[in-house]
Amino acid sequence: MKKDLLNFTVGPVMSSEEVRAIGADQVPYFRTQEFSEVMFENERLMIKFAKAGEGARTVFMTGSGTLSMEAAIMNLFSKDDNVIVIDGGSFGHRFVELLEIHEIPHSVIKPEFGHGVTKEQLDAYDEKGYTGFLVNLDETSVGVLYDIKLISEFCRKNKIFLVVDSISSFLCDPFNMEELGVQVMITGSQKALACPPGVSAIVLSKTAVDRVYQNNPRTMYMDLKSALKNGERGQTPFTCAVGILLQINERLREIEKAGGVDIEVERIGGLARYFREKIKDLPYEIISKSLPNAVTPLKPLNGESAYDIFLTLKDRYGIWVCPNGGTLKDEVFRVGHIGALHESDFDTLIDALKEIERN
Amino acid sequence: MKKDLLNFTVGPVMSSEEVRAIGADQVPYFRTQEFSEVMFENERLMIKFAKAGEGARTVFMTGSGTLSMEAAIMNLFSKDDNVIVIDGGSFGHRFVELLEIHEIPHSVIKPEFGHGVTKEQLDAYDEKGYTGFLVNLDETSVGVLYDIKLISEFCRKNKIFLVVDSISSFLCDPFNMEELGVQVMITGSQKALACPPGVSAIVLSKTAVDRVYQNNPRTMYMDLKSALKNGERGQTPFTCAVGILLQINERLREIEKAGGVDIEVERIGGLARYFREKIKDLPYEIISKSLPNAVTPLKPLNGESAYDIFLTLKDRYGIWVCPNGGTLKDEVFRVGHIGALHESDFDTLIDALKEIERN
Repeated sequence: MKKDLLNFTVGPVMSSEEVRAIGADQVPYFRTQEFSEVMFENERLMIKFAKAGEGARTVFMTGSGTLSMEAAIMNLFSKDDNVIVIDGGSFGHRFVELLEIHEIPHSVIKPEFGHGVTKEQLDAYDEKGYTGFLVNLDETSVGVLYDIKLISEFCRKNKIFLVVDSISSFLCDPFNMEELGVQVMITGSQKALACPPGVSAIVLSKTAVDRVYQNNPRTMYMDLKSALKNGERGQTPFTCAVGILLQINERLREIEKAGGVDIEVERIGGLARYFREKIKDLPYEIISKSLPNAVTPLKPLNGESAYDIFLTLKDRYGIWVCPNGGTLKDEVFRVGHIGALHESDFDTLIDALKEIERN
Repeated sequence: MKKDLLNFTVGPVMSSEEVRAIGADQVPYFRTQEFSEVMFENERLMIKFAKAGEGARTVFMTGSGTLSMEAAIMNLFSKDDNVIVIDGGSFGHRFVELLEIHEIPHSVIKPEFGHGVTKEQLDAYDEKGYTGFLVNLDETSVGVLYDIKLISEFCRKNKIFLVVDSISSFLCDPFNMEELGVQVMITGSQKALACPPGVSAIVLSKTAVDRVYQNNPRTMYMDLKSALKNGERGQTPFTCAVGILLQINERLREIEKAGGVDIEVERIGGLARYFREKIKDLPYEIISKSLPNAVTPLKPLNGESAYDIFLTLKDRYGIWVCPNGGTLKDEVFRVGHIGALHESDFDTLIDALKEIERN
């Protein structure tokens, strides 16, 4: 199948030449000190970029972000908890479904479509004895970034354990785990980490690590105790996606070398602003009232189907944008700003959209 | 880290040039008809090579073989079952632990070290009302291949649901799911499929598919119903390891083009025989009394530590063999015959072992 399309989806995204070169290497045997050193560095740089503070740990799970979402819920909450969850799109809704599957008591906040969560919405849950809070910071399905400061203050005041799915937000939007009192952060290899999909990562504060060791969930593959223990020697309990973990190492080092996480956030933010300025001339509405840096959700105003535009861009222009599913399929498509993209790539996309508009 | 060592481990193994070239491509967006076609072909060829018969299905899970072992147990057995499990090494023992975690009643058969399972051992469980049987066909940790015909006959007579972990046996040893009445077969991308680790596959007979649809395990990521349903349109419920699935496609097509599964089994068997003939001249004991084609377990007879030989081969000769862990660490190492290996590679290994012997 064709793989050389210009890719503006929100994952898998385009990788740097250096990351791709590793994909062509033989995958090394990994029960070695050499691979452990790579894993130690991966853990250290993830903690540094998440600003997770003293005593924090990172575990790398071979699987999608959903695996890590489920692992976080199984290892950190129980039937004795009562969790607030924000359900503002398909990823927030996935958290709700996971809480249902694992029978964890919860209440759902449903923000207005395209909007963030408000202080009034949170205040309704103030001093009600809630113990946990789940939010996917960038609800990628509709391109809404929630106000993490607001949520952080609410959780601190109520002494609530805060778990943040940062799958599409890590390295894109300013984020400081320690300052915000975030206990757990989840991300995936195929988002702003710009590596192939197959690995997700969970960064745990010291408090979260202690909590994991107190729990005993019914699972082997998702048991974070075992992941943490093996991680102490730079290893994983089961055969991991060794190749992708080596690519993550290359990419984390690239970011560090270029100046660190703040520079990367600024770079992606710059691309988002560049595109949003240019799209103003075209008949699209940006549907989100609280935009993340990773993605811009667009609604065609000229009556065309969003999904048809996705297909035309793919088949006629060699460009992938990110289609929506379900009821939004014909209403919305999304343009990602993550991965190995440059301003000139967005010029190419804008030109294609203009040409489609003319025809 | 160094990645160009000659690799005789049992995974990750060496990949063909064509498979590695795909690793250097950009990973394509996958919610497309083009990727669905790839997945349909992957499913079809897996079913063909497993000889799984009419109505069989394959699901691809992003994760290690252990993920698929746990998913199989959660989706196919319940507290109403009573399962026989063969615990002849660390992988068989993993099945036992999974049955304990998920509270599924079971009885354990422990074969003599280095030996297969005997008819007498099975007969002790005859007509006792057992409902399931779990075996990892090639207990890779000690290089023992169980007698699948014996097990198959026992299960057929007792109307027992047979699940086979073929992680290191698929494409290596003769295997015919339909003829043997095997209902579920599990394998991984990094074994004889010779792709990077990160994907495991479960082939289900029609009976097993029906059984999955009747169960309701408490899990989202391991829910095989959802994997089967999404597979009907060539998709996965969550972002999958797209790059590795494209590499699996290349590899399955390579095998098909070269004459199919029987030719591949013969090729790997030929390499195993070649190596075992040559190692006779050296002071090593082959500890298994029931050898699989994938691997030869060796015990040094000259008093040297097996783990030291592993380190010497790695650091001085640029060769990986597969070390053992736990109590066998100094007793046994293993030489794999899977991946992109040729007779000349085994000559290189034998020469290195001879040189170590002389020093």
